[in-house]
Parts: sequence; structure tokens; C-alpha cells
Amino acid sequence: MRSKGFDGMVCSIADVMGAVGDRWGVLVMRDLLLGLKRYDDLRRSTGITNATLSDRLKALEKNGLIERRQYQARPARYEYVPTARGRDLALLMQSMVQIGDKWNLGSRDDPP
Amino acid sequence: MRSKGFDGMVCSIADVMGAVGDRWGVLVMRDLLLGLKRYDDLRRSTGITNATLSDRLKALEKNGLIERRQYQARPARYEYVPTARGRDLALLMQSMVQIGDKWNLGSRDDPP
Repeated sequence: MRSKGFDGMVCSIADVMGAVGDRWGVLVMRDLLLGLKRYDDLRRSTGITNATLSDRLKALEKNGLIERRQYQARPARYEYVPTARGRDLALLMQSMVQIGDKWNLGSRDDPP
Repeated sequence: MRSKGFDGMVCSIADVMGAVGDRWGVLVMRDLLLGLKRYDDLRRSTGITNATLSDRLKALEKNGLIERRQYQARPARYEYVPTARGRDLALLMQSMVQIGDKWNLGSRDDPP
């Protein structure tokens, strides 16, 4: 793995965004880190179209963030699990939860 | 500001990704938080095309993350500055730097 992100940039932030791919990738990683494993559950939780979800899952696997595991033979069924590298993204999710919560707190109509 | 992110999801992570927009938005915010202010500097630093950069800047402004300020009258020139809400994203950048650095450290050919 080289220290180059998308478009050959040398930047850790670009690396991470390059590996996750886009905001749909962020949502998929969010759900996998929360324990969802199966395609249909991811589909339901994120509301992503089939084409995008299956594309995102392939990209996340290729980038080493998730692993595809067969859990049933006939018919073949697969589940998706974050790798150690993928689990590093928990920190990213936490930071976003913290920021989003702060934003939403500041914008409530009622005083706390 | 409602606690709903892209596509009407109620999720802080979706909120943040919705406000930033995409990975280009992340790079633009990275550079603005590092102190770059001018269009040409952002263009050079990120390598984003003019169409995408000007579109991203408009979206970030609309989402309350940056402010456009005129700093010269004739010809009119503008600079871009993160708002308080935009500065909250520093936490997101830090988390990505930490993750990206960890990934790159683990993948070096030479021992540390």
C-alpha cells in the first residue's frame, strides 16, 4: 500500500477518502462497523440502490476495508465483515457523530 | 438546520457527509482549514477542475461550512473562510490523518 490517495496525492486524508470512495462508502462502513453483515440488511439500512451498493462493496473489498465471507453453501450466501484496516474507520465515524450531534444540538428549537 | 442528512436520513454521519458533499468537498475543507483562502490556491492544491471546485465551494457555502468574502474591489476578488460550523470539521480531518498515517506506517517497506 503506497502513501498515495486518489489521483496520486500524497496525503493521509486523501488516502482515507480514496479508500472509502464516497459518502455511500461511508454509510456502508458505518453499518458494517455497527454489526450489519448481510447485503439485504445493508440495502435496507442505507437505502442505496443495488447497483451502487454492490459496486461500493466490491470497491471496499478491493481496498482492503472489508472481507466477503461465505456463510451458506446452497444457495451460496455471503456476509461482509470489516478488516482490521476497516475497523480503523471507527475513529472517523466517531468524529462525524460528534460533529453531527453538535450541529444538531445547536439547531434545536427548544432550549436543552 | 434539521437533523436529517442526505436523502432524509436521521443520522449524524449522514448529516456530516451530506454537508461536505463528497471527497472533493473534504479536500477543499482540508485546505481551507489549513489556511488556504483563494480560489487559485485551492485549485492548485487539490487539482480539482474549475467546474467541480466552483460547484463544491458554492455547496459548502450553501451548507454553512464556509463564507465567501470580498477582499478586493476592482477587480472584485473573493476569499473563502470556514465558518464556526466548518471549523468543527477539524476533528474529522484529524481522525483521517490519524487513520491514514497508521495505514501508511503499517505498510512501509523499511522498519521504523
